Amino acid sequence: MTLNLLMTGNELMSGVTVDSNSALIARLLEALNMRVGSKLAIGDDLAQICAEVERLAGLSEVLVVNGGLGPTSDDLSSEALARVAGVRLVENAEALAHLEAWCGRRGLALNAANRKQALLPAGSVLIPNRVGSAVGFRLQHRGCEIVCTPGPPGELRPMLEEHILPWLAERYPLREPVVITRFQLFGIGESSLQELIRSGMPDWPADVELGFRAGAPLLELKVSSFSSRAEDARRGCEERLRAMLEGYIIGMADTTLPSCLVGLLAARGERVALAESCTGGLIAALLTEVPGASRVFEAGYVVYANRIKERMLGVSHETLERHGAVSEQVVREMAAGALRESGAEYALAVSGIAGPDGATPGKPVGTVWIAWGNAGNIRARELYFPVARKLFQTMVAATALDLLRRDLLGIEGDPRYLRERRVPR
Amino acid sequence: MTLNLLMTGNELMSGVTVDSNSALIARLLEALNMRVGSKLAIGDDLAQICAEVERLAGLSEVLVVNGGLGPTSDDLSSEALARVAGVRLVENAEALAHLEAWCGRRGLALNAANRKQALLPAGSVLIPNRVGSAVGFRLQHRGCEIVCTPGPPGELRPMLEEHILPWLAERYPLREPVVITRFQLFGIGESSLQELIRSGMPDWPADVELGFRAGAPLLELKVSSFSSRAEDARRGCEERLRAMLEGYIIGMADTTLPSCLVGLLAARGERVALAESCTGGLIAALLTEVPGASRVFEAGYVVYANRIKERMLGVSHETLERHGAVSEQVVREMAAGALRESGAEYALAVSGIAGPDGATPGKPVGTVWIAWGNAGNIRARELYFPVARKLFQTMVAATALDLLRRDLLGIEGDPRYLRERRVPR
Repeated sequence: MTLNLLMTGNELMSGVTVDSNSALIARLLEALNMRVGSKLAIGDDLAQICAEVERLAGLSEVLVVNGGLGPTSDDLSSEALARVAGVRLVENAEALAHLEAWCGRRGLALNAANRKQALLPAGSVLIPNRVGSAVGFRLQHRGCEIVCTPGPPGELRPMLEEHILPWLAERYPLREPVVITRFQLFGIGESSLQELIRSGMPDWPADVELGFRAGAPLLELKVSSFSSRAEDARRGCEERLRAMLEGYIIGMADTTLPSCLVGLLAARGERVALAESCTGGLIAALLTEVPGASRVFEAGYVVYANRIKERMLGVSHETLERHGAVSEQVVREMAAGALRESGAEYALAVSGIAGPDGATPGKPVGTVWIAWGNAGNIRARELYFPVARKLFQTMVAATALDLLRRDLLGIEGDPRYLRERRVPR
Repeated sequence: MTLNLLMTGNELMSGVTVDSNSALIARLLEALNMRVGSKLAIGDDLAQICAEVERLAGLSEVLVVNGGLGPTSDDLSSEALARVAGVRLVENAEALAHLEAWCGRRGLALNAANRKQALLPAGSVLIPNRVGSAVGFRLQHRGCEIVCTPGPPGELRPMLEEHILPWLAERYPLREPVVITRFQLFGIGESSLQELIRSGMPDWPADVELGFRAGAPLLELKVSSFSSRAEDARRGCEERLRAMLEGYIIGMADTTLPSCLVGLLAARGERVALAESCTGGLIAALLTEVPGASRVFEAGYVVYANRIKERMLGVSHETLERHGAVSEQVVREMAAGALRESGAEYALAVSGIAGPDGATPGKPVGTVWIAWGNAGNIRARELYFPVARKLFQTMVAATALDLLRRDLLGIEGDPRYLRERRVPR
């Protein structure tokens, strides 16, 4: 099945907007085993839209058009499609009712601009928009199903999930089941992981697909099968990957490091306190982004200045003087102070040099000490992330969360980043 | 001048990667008054790349190809371009020297995969890559200048800025000067701003271009002129916008709320302390993302639990019991506590209900109290952001920073968000 995308909008062409819609469409289509053949983006130009719709319709079984359904004069999709199909624009009763209800809920009268959104090419089939005013529609031209969708991602996604994907699934039924398993990993890079799989699983089955998506800080590993015949093989691969990657697996699907840690602590009925210097509150912010974080997190100490480390957490002046703020002794005292002050069961403490200034002899920009554990057992390690300030903070926060996660799960042995991220001396 | 983009890569088609490169290219071209006519993305398929290069070369004066210059077998741009142009691939001495030096700096021997990157279509002109291994190149075909560029954004940007844009500027000289002024605004929405400009400046000159780019939390307003004739008009517009928008202007170019605040406080030699409940450390994290934040920020109190508000900041138990954590009295005591504990000149304190749980009668999810000021004058206001948890935290953090910014600058009168963001009662 040949499926192409046509994205429209001046904001895409001027660089004002980064097009995330086409990636969203491609990811959602994967579950139907449908691939996007090409995606073309053009501006709000009626002649150009008509010409490209005509050309692409001749090349595609399905053409998804995105954008240009709004109320303003540069929203041209309905007009272009009517022109290409050689039909009139007619007021669609269902669309009009939707627009009246939509305006009504906002206490607005239906004006001419909004009413324009009820005009659809004759013969097209309306696609409901649960969120916004702009309905979608589809119509056939030259044997191609042309599907017009709204630009705002918050409207596009529900329309795809609730209407367009079910329709596509019915129209182009999967002959075979598609299963996509997503692992979220931390602490191993894409190339190391590829090498590990290549050497550790040289007999990787041809009908199981492997995919990677490198984010900061997580790496997503995707294992997919596209037939019932391949399902056992896929399950086998998943099992072997689980055994091989063990401690590097944060979770499945959309798990993140903070959500994993909140879940682990909540299950134990325990809490963590944070003592942050170089991350400046980022670890606390990441944890509290998770709904329900208040069950496991009560207190964070952002101790950016040395005198605040002393005052808030009782780090000794002498320790700071003798070892410097970025040292094993100081992060240990920070962690101990956070446990004592907060009453939490666990603490995480970080102190490092985010740069661009602040390097001292033997402690280059990128050096960080992390301490973690509970009152009976605080551990501390030094790492080195010689990257730009913001990425440094992101990596330190993620690493600190991961070290505590490993501790809570009782994972033995050092993760490879503790070997690889050493300060050069 | 007709300029089109061809983006290549399976990762673009599967939705693994959101294409930000094409937006970057478009934004940088704007300074040369060049617009992108269309952008097409396709996968790593040799036949398809050849066919589209051939087709687009016939339609374009300049065709920028992005991606496919790496060392692996799915990097096909050189091969495709040689095929289309009907020339051989030849090893480019300059490219080879670059690759040898690049590998040498990493302590690696030049292997076959990397050496492949020195093979360029005969007759093409090398474009240096200061960052990565993959050099770019350009060659002419059917009167079209085809420019091949690397996929990693960190390599693409310097290559564009240092080589391709200067070459384009020379080849297609601007007949007239282009000036683009960017204002960063907070506290006013895109549609309100458009309405304000429409009614306040009905005589907006035709040769001055106005553009908007809505981010969370800032709104960028762009004012551009494309001829020397239009420059006075542009300057006039800028002056009137400055007068009209005054307190909503955070700064020019790439200024952000945190960078603005760090600059303001640093200039005065003063510091701010943060007391955060519902933002959970986000305000502190935003401030400390700014290089040099340590001059103005020493201490942050993430007081997520009530007993921590009492213990860390001395909020009275009685106040918490009587008024609840999300109340004027509590944020005032939090701010006072932060000033007292930290010794900073200014404090910001926030307490609110980020959701999805936590609503109480009269305090729906989205309610927040913000206090700001110095020891002599702490002010507090209630606002309402009924949005998803993460966006709530982003908006509260930005609003808190803005309220303190207005205070430091002595801006009189309430910003419109204090009127618009009221808790429904």
